[in-house]
Amino acid sequence: MSDAQQTDQPAYRRSAGTARGEARRLELLDKVTDDLADNGLTDYSLRRAARAAGTTHKVILYHFDGLEDLLAQALTRLRRRRVDNVLAAAIREHDTLAERIRRVWPVLADDASGLRVIDQAIGLAMYDPERYAHLATDAAAQYLDALLKMCPESWSAARKREVAELILATMRGFLAEWRTTRDAERIEAGMAGLIRALEREEAAE
Amino acid sequence: MSDAQQTDQPAYRRSAGTARGEARRLELLDKVTDDLADNGLTDYSLRRAARAAGTTHKVILYHFDGLEDLLAQALTRLRRRRVDNVLAAAIREHDTLAERIRRVWPVLADDASGLRVIDQAIGLAMYDPERYAHLATDAAAQYLDALLKMCPESWSAARKREVAELILATMRGFLAEWRTTRDAERIEAGMAGLIRALEREEAAE
Repeated sequence: MSDAQQTDQPAYRRSAGTARGEARRLELLDKVTDDLADNGLTDYSLRRAARAAGTTHKVILYHFDGLEDLLAQALTRLRRRRVDNVLAAAIREHDTLAERIRRVWPVLADDASGLRVIDQAIGLAMYDPERYAHLATDAAAQYLDALLKMCPESWSAARKREVAELILATMRGFLAEWRTTRDAERIEAGMAGLIRALEREEAAE
Repeated sequence: MSDAQQTDQPAYRRSAGTARGEARRLELLDKVTDDLADNGLTDYSLRRAARAAGTTHKVILYHFDGLEDLLAQALTRLRRRRVDNVLAAAIREHDTLAERIRRVWPVLADDASGLRVIDQAIGLAMYDPERYAHLATDAAAQYLDALLKMCPESWSAARKREVAELILATMRGFLAEWRTTRDAERIEAGMAGLIRALEREEAAE
């Protein structure tokens, strides 16, 4: 998403060019990001974004290329927040990968953190990819980077990638289950299967 | 969803009581199910259901407890169709579990089958669980049953459950990726990780 700032922008978006404009843009983005975390994505609108940022929808459109651009940027920031939480929970030097992943799940599933809006966005992208796929485009890449860092350094790049993608997909499946049915027992069983797989992967070194 | 037919229904739903009414209900359900498979869930409405079934929304409401009941029943049928496809692809007697799962993925991801509407429904349930979680309630149970059957018979119930839940969650994660970003390379890497895990699980017997 951040690449958008480097590319040519429509003429009406004049804020990106100046330090002051950029500061204002970030200030608006912060407020909308917090509003999304607090209140979720359901029926989000330019009107709601403007109210959250204490401004008008014209000002929002001056600083962003429309609602979807604003949402994509806010979601990228929220995912960054979640990934930071995940890394903070996972990084203790002498832990195994399996132990780290055990600690990561509650961070991802945490309802109190306000980060479930990220899973809402994935849901929206699955529901209507033609309109909303861009809300999910960079999601996997953001998490994957964190997961690759948790793998033993001695592993080959391909092996890290395969294990990280397996973990990422499984966590996404758990999140889909958790967000829709709240069935913790189901997730616990799947987690036991995943942990065993990771322990074997590490033992195979 | 099918339990709903056994429970007491509002007085206006008189069709369930007679064989003729039940036949008419199934006929309408078939047509709506095919429409969903062909055209997806985006902005689905009573009006669209009525048009697909060649009737009026009053007739739909006579036979179903509203749009959401109709959708839930249609999705249960479509999942049944997908699970049957999955089982047909997976069941060759002498295959390993890993080999079966390799063959299952293309069936789940098949765009031509019209079954991606099932993934749309999961997306909708993730986006707005308060309104749509019921569209996902039985989803896991339907798939899980098929996955349990693919596990070696000699495994304990707990072991089957853990491995089946791991596979289910991973497939859901792959589907979320596939439906939103179409990134086959990412899925292929994760699949390599999953297959290795399943091969080790089977070797540990």
